[in-house]
Amino acid sequence: MAQKPSIPKGTRDFGPVEMARRNYIFDTIRSVFNLYGYSQIETPAMENLSTLMGKYGEEGDKLLFKILNSGDYLRGIDMGLVENGDYVKLTPQISEKGLRYDLTVPFARFVVQHRNELQMPFKRFQIQPVWRADRPQKGRYREFYQCDADVVGSDSLINEIELLQLIDDVFTRLGIRITIKLNNRKVLSGIAELIGAPEKITDITVAIDKIDKIGIEAVNAELLERGITSDAIAVLQPVITMQGSTAERLAELRRVLASSETGIKGVDELQEVIDGVNLLGLEAELELDVSLARGLNYYTGTIIEVKARDVAIGSITGGGRYDNLTGVFGMPGLSGVGISFGADRIYDVLNALDLYPSSAAAGTQVMFTNFGSSEAAAAMKMLKVVRSAGIRAEIYPDAAKMKKQMGRADALAIPYVAIVGESEMAEGKLTLKNMTTGEQQLLSVEEAIATIGQ
Amino acid sequence: MAQKPSIPKGTRDFGPVEMARRNYIFDTIRSVFNLYGYSQIETPAMENLSTLMGKYGEEGDKLLFKILNSGDYLRGIDMGLVENGDYVKLTPQISEKGLRYDLTVPFARFVVQHRNELQMPFKRFQIQPVWRADRPQKGRYREFYQCDADVVGSDSLINEIELLQLIDDVFTRLGIRITIKLNNRKVLSGIAELIGAPEKITDITVAIDKIDKIGIEAVNAELLERGITSDAIAVLQPVITMQGSTAERLAELRRVLASSETGIKGVDELQEVIDGVNLLGLEAELELDVSLARGLNYYTGTIIEVKARDVAIGSITGGGRYDNLTGVFGMPGLSGVGISFGADRIYDVLNALDLYPSSAAAGTQVMFTNFGSSEAAAAMKMLKVVRSAGIRAEIYPDAAKMKKQMGRADALAIPYVAIVGESEMAEGKLTLKNMTTGEQQLLSVEEAIATIGQ
Repeated sequence: MAQKPSIPKGTRDFGPVEMARRNYIFDTIRSVFNLYGYSQIETPAMENLSTLMGKYGEEGDKLLFKILNSGDYLRGIDMGLVENGDYVKLTPQISEKGLRYDLTVPFARFVVQHRNELQMPFKRFQIQPVWRADRPQKGRYREFYQCDADVVGSDSLINEIELLQLIDDVFTRLGIRITIKLNNRKVLSGIAELIGAPEKITDITVAIDKIDKIGIEAVNAELLERGITSDAIAVLQPVITMQGSTAERLAELRRVLASSETGIKGVDELQEVIDGVNLLGLEAELELDVSLARGLNYYTGTIIEVKARDVAIGSITGGGRYDNLTGVFGMPGLSGVGISFGADRIYDVLNALDLYPSSAAAGTQVMFTNFGSSEAAAAMKMLKVVRSAGIRAEIYPDAAKMKKQMGRADALAIPYVAIVGESEMAEGKLTLKNMTTGEQQLLSVEEAIATIGQ
Repeated sequence: MAQKPSIPKGTRDFGPVEMARRNYIFDTIRSVFNLYGYSQIETPAMENLSTLMGKYGEEGDKLLFKILNSGDYLRGIDMGLVENGDYVKLTPQISEKGLRYDLTVPFARFVVQHRNELQMPFKRFQIQPVWRADRPQKGRYREFYQCDADVVGSDSLINEIELLQLIDDVFTRLGIRITIKLNNRKVLSGIAELIGAPEKITDITVAIDKIDKIGIEAVNAELLERGITSDAIAVLQPVITMQGSTAERLAELRRVLASSETGIKGVDELQEVIDGVNLLGLEAELELDVSLARGLNYYTGTIIEVKARDVAIGSITGGGRYDNLTGVFGMPGLSGVGISFGADRIYDVLNALDLYPSSAAAGTQVMFTNFGSSEAAAAMKMLKVVRSAGIRAEIYPDAAKMKKQMGRADALAIPYVAIVGESEMAEGKLTLKNMTTGEQQLLSVEEAIATIGQ
């Protein structure tokens, strides 16, 4: 019975060209992670639901993909729950595993489970897919890769400085010009202290973020509308309208936050990180941005966000420092700092700017023709030599018509075709056709290798 | 609330050392796949259950991990099924997706779904985890990687020859000595024809397989017990006791199977593949083995199995030719040939033989000490130079006691420590300590790079 096959909504197949490009991105990031002393780990796709539930809020619990227990999952269930349609309470009775939702919770679980084997500070990276039962839409998938590096067990700001260098290194290698935005949670806490309304911090950052678009009058109006007092808004003015260099902004923040111990701690931390990074030099543009408030409930110090300078797209990397990664698993007080590369958006940026180097292609470099069994045998001997020189090569497996064979090379954008017919065999050579220029040359295998490998 | 964290049974965490080794294996296989013109694809972890069900037999259906529908999965279900405890019939009402069970069915689905974009013959490889709700036991996991290459849309035996070379190339690079066992489904069909009992073919291959262990008398007794007639057993004798070189075995098979058109076709195919491979030369030992019967219900031509010669472990790679990959999805008659590398067993073999090259380690090569902020700043400048030379390096993030810092390098088997203290700073140099020999040298950064990179 024929079925029309499809894949679940929100998921994707990756074909050869996409895969070669994705591998280029992941290989680049992986090699830089290694260069900075981060070690790769992998955790299972499935975690116990007890590990995952309650870690992402009520909404997150709903978005977890849950795996039906194997065998007779109906045995022993509470029938009342079924009759009342109470699927939320029934779920834990018929499902005890779920697919990982991010890499952070599995990492926390890993650290606690293996704490006796780990050397602190522990620097790990992880590149694996995660799954979320979100409503699919453009750029949002139900299966996507995350690409995280974290160091836990050290409070030193050297870790922040190193991660900023690492980010700079990755995007320099990829050829993407970036702006790294920096903030510190303690600065935001200081601002909240200052105006005596800690619960309004999100409203404030949202409003400040609009200053360039709507101007100071509109921002002040919005703040008032969001319930910030006129007095508080007056106090906030220097923060909202902050201009100038990073050094000038730091000085201004230090002045405004002088009365807040937490706020000044945040300014000190920012200063140390920025000085450290500047001492070493960065390709990226570094920008102090007090409106940056990502991961507000989670981050406790440095907050990092990266934007591409030449493509209008959201954040392509983000991260920050946290205080208590593993408390929920019974191991309190473990702090760390981490970053996460957004592979899908980086892919889009590289496509938009057409930045893939030719080495990012993993396709066949030369295709040998097949004119019958004796020609094919001769071609296969040459093919072996070509491959041992590291050139990706194939032979057309059937003695099909020349046109069909050339058509394959064309369709797959294979740059060279090696023609081995009777006359070539007689000379122990091949005719190498450059598929871009159409030029043909009678060459020895060694000469062909040199030409293709150029 | 503290939970004691664990992972679902049958799944694994991979730590830094295991990951570096697994990456070495996957990178090696991936680069050889590319070298032979195979292109990588990836498919989603989740497939529609309609794609997966019925493809692996009744037992396989049970072993699929099924994903509970999101939201109110109880709405509209048939309550009678719940009351009767008929979980098998209930499952499709509350679950429409499952985790992929192997890479073959998703590949078939991919080929049909994307048929208009694909160039035939289509040579693809795929390295991804699969999930099976099998009872976990030693060496059998509920999540494990498969590593498959297939070419579809070509009947040419050149594909078989190329895949055998590819296998040879992979294991030569890994340093594993192997025996490749070859058989052909048509030879087995010929034998079945010969004795007039096609349904007994599995019994026959199982018995033949024991010849070396239990001897001809016991094999014949077992065949009789399994319901093969004495006459048939007599006819089978030359096949069971077949000895000598591959050429001699082929000649013997050709004689015995002379009356079976199918059998002779199988011998011809074996001959062509073996001749083709021998012409090109293999590192591996090639063995014609008529007892080889893997994938009997699936393979229609060549059957391939690879064993490690220096470690007693099951098959480490296998594959064969099939006739009808995509028929079940409404695209009949697509034949192909494929192989699958057993990554977990290859990992075990490399461990047993201690065959990992030092380049397979991805860990830090040199750790810089941290004696305080000014020393750390000096160290970080050197660190940047070291990294840009491609050396994996880190700095101890905190100004901890020397003993603690050295302890980290020891525990992580970091081969070099770069000590940057006051005296080194004064000279603009570092003291490089070889952690294996204990030797220390005062060196410039460039000299240190040369030493570490050796």
